[in-house]
Amino acid sequence: MAGLVFRRATRDDLEAIVDMLVDDYIGAKREDGSRPLNAKYVAAFDAIAADPNQFLLVVEEAGEIVGSLQLSFIPGIARLGMWRGQIEGVRIKTSRRGGGLGHKMLDWAIAQCRAKGCELVQLAMDKSREDTLRFYESLGFKASHEGLKLDLTRG
Amino acid sequence: MAGLVFRRATRDDLEAIVDMLVDDYIGAKREDGSRPLNAKYVAAFDAIAADPNQFLLVVEEAGEIVGSLQLSFIPGIARLGMWRGQIEGVRIKTSRRGGGLGHKMLDWAIAQCRAKGCELVQLAMDKSREDTLRFYESLGFKASHEGLKLDLTRG
Repeated sequence: MAGLVFRRATRDDLEAIVDMLVDDYIGAKREDGSRPLNAKYVAAFDAIAADPNQFLLVVEEAGEIVGSLQLSFIPGIARLGMWRGQIEGVRIKTSRRGGGLGHKMLDWAIAQCRAKGCELVQLAMDKSREDTLRFYESLGFKASHEGLKLDLTRG
Repeated sequence: MAGLVFRRATRDDLEAIVDMLVDDYIGAKREDGSRPLNAKYVAAFDAIAADPNQFLLVVEEAGEIVGSLQLSFIPGIARLGMWRGQIEGVRIKTSRRGGGLGHKMLDWAIAQCRAKGCELVQLAMDKSREDTLRFYESLGFKASHEGLKLDLTRG
């Protein structure tokens, strides 16, 4: 895996990021891979870019985007004013899955959280992604919490 | 429950918020209720206040703080650029537990998320808080995700 570049996403990366979201058994149902890009994705990118506590990562290899994730740095009062790093939207290009790239991306994300002074890294994973739990546990994550979601688009 | 005021916390509310964190079977182990307040709490309050995507709520009744929670509004690319509302640090004064105040606070939080354009509200709850799961399910939350945590203070 020589030649992997970890960097902040630019607007030019957005099509590649959306393509990875679409190419996922959960994402396929709720994303829009059409061109030109749905304006909602562009607005979301701009909101992330404008927020200094958000970092949208892309991993580039030989000019191709092969992975992406979003880091959010969240201040809080609890645990002596502890900052949390939160990971969302971990996606890896289908052709690159199973080769250790996810591990490198998570190692990178955890290091960023440490550098920002976070004492906890958290994420929520869909319980239907069975292999994913073992992956995160291998990195030291504990499934100590229930991840609860309330869909506001229903009713 | 006439006379409940839902408002953004000020620095003057911070001692009352910390007291609620300390007065909790999990919080007791990891918070500091001493006076003057640990400077880490004050720094965290200032970080929250400086971030337009954070809202630290207090509920006041007859001049007394009886509840608190933190809302985070998080932009994201997935699900057509969906914004998430995230709830952390829900705390209710011991003497006021079991009387429906938590329900009113969550209703308030969910309404704020709708007003901000969020399509999902999410939170993670410690699996050891058994009654809490039923409470959130009664509000419509689904325990569809594993809430994973990595403690960076160990090793």
